[in-house]
Amino acid sequence: MTPLPPKSLDVVGIGNAIVDVLVQADDAFLDDHGLTKGTMALIDEAQAERLYGSVGPGLETSGGSAANTLAGIAQLGGRAGFIGRVRDDQLGAIFSHDIRSVGARFDTPAATTGPSTARCLILVTPDAQRTMCTYLGASVQLDPDDLDLDLVRQARVLYLEGYLWDSPEAQRAFVAAAEAAREAGGEVALSLSDAFCVDRHRDSFRELVDGHVDILFANEMEITSLYKADSFEQAAAEVRGRCRIAALTRSELGSQVLAGEESIPIEPFLLGELVDTTGAGDLYAAGFLHAYTRGASLERCGRLGSLCAGQVVTQLGPRPQSCLRELMERHLD
Amino acid sequence: MTPLPPKSLDVVGIGNAIVDVLVQADDAFLDDHGLTKGTMALIDEAQAERLYGSVGPGLETSGGSAANTLAGIAQLGGRAGFIGRVRDDQLGAIFSHDIRSVGARFDTPAATTGPSTARCLILVTPDAQRTMCTYLGASVQLDPDDLDLDLVRQARVLYLEGYLWDSPEAQRAFVAAAEAAREAGGEVALSLSDAFCVDRHRDSFRELVDGHVDILFANEMEITSLYKADSFEQAAAEVRGRCRIAALTRSELGSQVLAGEESIPIEPFLLGELVDTTGAGDLYAAGFLHAYTRGASLERCGRLGSLCAGQVVTQLGPRPQSCLRELMERHLD
Repeated sequence: MTPLPPKSLDVVGIGNAIVDVLVQADDAFLDDHGLTKGTMALIDEAQAERLYGSVGPGLETSGGSAANTLAGIAQLGGRAGFIGRVRDDQLGAIFSHDIRSVGARFDTPAATTGPSTARCLILVTPDAQRTMCTYLGASVQLDPDDLDLDLVRQARVLYLEGYLWDSPEAQRAFVAAAEAAREAGGEVALSLSDAFCVDRHRDSFRELVDGHVDILFANEMEITSLYKADSFEQAAAEVRGRCRIAALTRSELGSQVLAGEESIPIEPFLLGELVDTTGAGDLYAAGFLHAYTRGASLERCGRLGSLCAGQVVTQLGPRPQSCLRELMERHLD
Repeated sequence: MTPLPPKSLDVVGIGNAIVDVLVQADDAFLDDHGLTKGTMALIDEAQAERLYGSVGPGLETSGGSAANTLAGIAQLGGRAGFIGRVRDDQLGAIFSHDIRSVGARFDTPAATTGPSTARCLILVTPDAQRTMCTYLGASVQLDPDDLDLDLVRQARVLYLEGYLWDSPEAQRAFVAAAEAAREAGGEVALSLSDAFCVDRHRDSFRELVDGHVDILFANEMEITSLYKADSFEQAAAEVRGRCRIAALTRSELGSQVLAGEESIPIEPFLLGELVDTTGAGDLYAAGFLHAYTRGASLERCGRLGSLCAGQVVTQLGPRPQSCLRELMERHLD
């Protein structure tokens, strides 16, 4: 592997700054509200209020896909930065505290007017699957001026969250950030985030992958949706060569890391009883990228990804409550 | 047991309306900040900000001692009401949603000015003990007009949280509510809440117990503090006869229910691995009072209390994420 240039940060991520509200729900509740299990639906503030009014008590915790990844990297001891927008309200203070408290840099100024901090209602069903309803609030107000390209240039890897692709401004910001990262000798990683999101933007996601992405993260549903493939194998064949590395996750089947002609199967880890899959993909990316920026082999990248995902699914919420660094030393060193 | 008069509510509670912030901490952190494990310290807003700035990421969830009890009673299928004050902010909205969503009545108007909704920083140490730092905010602004005596009169049991005794206004409100409850044929229950709180107000708590309380809840530290006793046995002998029923909890030793000459030992339940003792006493009171208002024997009251406490300590946070009613049917029926 080509050594990455010296940089002051390992990974900088751009994504939605969201506080999650975790509630328990059964399958009938999803049906009644027209929700598809395992996916993310965008809702407006009125829908958010209505839906919140119909669910039971919640646990609130910082979330956001890329933010979870960057928090995980910081918890592993990596040098992480996050760019995303909150409002100057109580949920914004919670988000800011949580990501900074694990040692990630987070300097995006909070909005002083406009919609409140983004919230995601996460319905956890008894099978531990999560179904998400997101009110994007302040997070889509990410100003081009907030896109701190100096921070992006300091990172070995720029990590982009596919969810942001729903906003045309964010699409442009993404491309600008990806170009700045590469010009500064960094690499660009992308998570496809959600099969519905891929479906909404298939063509532009394909162009993004072909033109700007070095490392692609996707689960089975997302990669088959991207290439309208009939099987995982077909989708894997399609993506090969379109970006340098593709890390494809398959839940209890583990993951597959593709690079050039290589195809490295990675066993899953499960560090306890499966409780809530929220954050599994985000923490896989965290483990993978942390190992990657330390110059580890792709197999070790995949294994650290699996380990971090295998921890976060044993707890409620997407920010690990166990010490990931200790787990890494115990299981992988 | 004398049958209780027909009422439209089983239990109405008065307490602090608080959102908990659960964070992990080690013993050294408690020492560094001069905190005593297992107790509650009152802090002001500046201290709250400072302390929050020095802890890791948190999980936010509705709390408040009496509020946890009333939520538990509602989750068991009891008719519950809560009186307490939040501010009209995001944390207040979370508190209001959570307690209403389990079916408890909560009509106290949110304050539109003044301090923000109360927060309690709960430091959970690796031994599962919790140490609490509470910023009371809006909750001590409970107005005499908010003290809905009509609601109190509708309850079979009025449940009072000892923590409120720190405020002279609340002391007066307590006595007024206790008198209204008894005049309407209801009974009065009190939780001593915290050994330090008992220490601050020993004489007035003794008067309250002697003059106004039918059912007293206390743990070993609290009851020995109340009577400056050298042992649990001595404290138990002291309290006997001062109120009709005393339910004394002793963590892993279970509990002891005293009534007249009777002394009923109750075995502890533990429904899984011990994770966080937050809410154990509150949920013991919930189970006890729910069975009590259904006319159950004191032994069954104690057993349902043990069961509910034994569930809540297997999870993070003081509001049960399992269905208490289902647990009750499985283990006690």
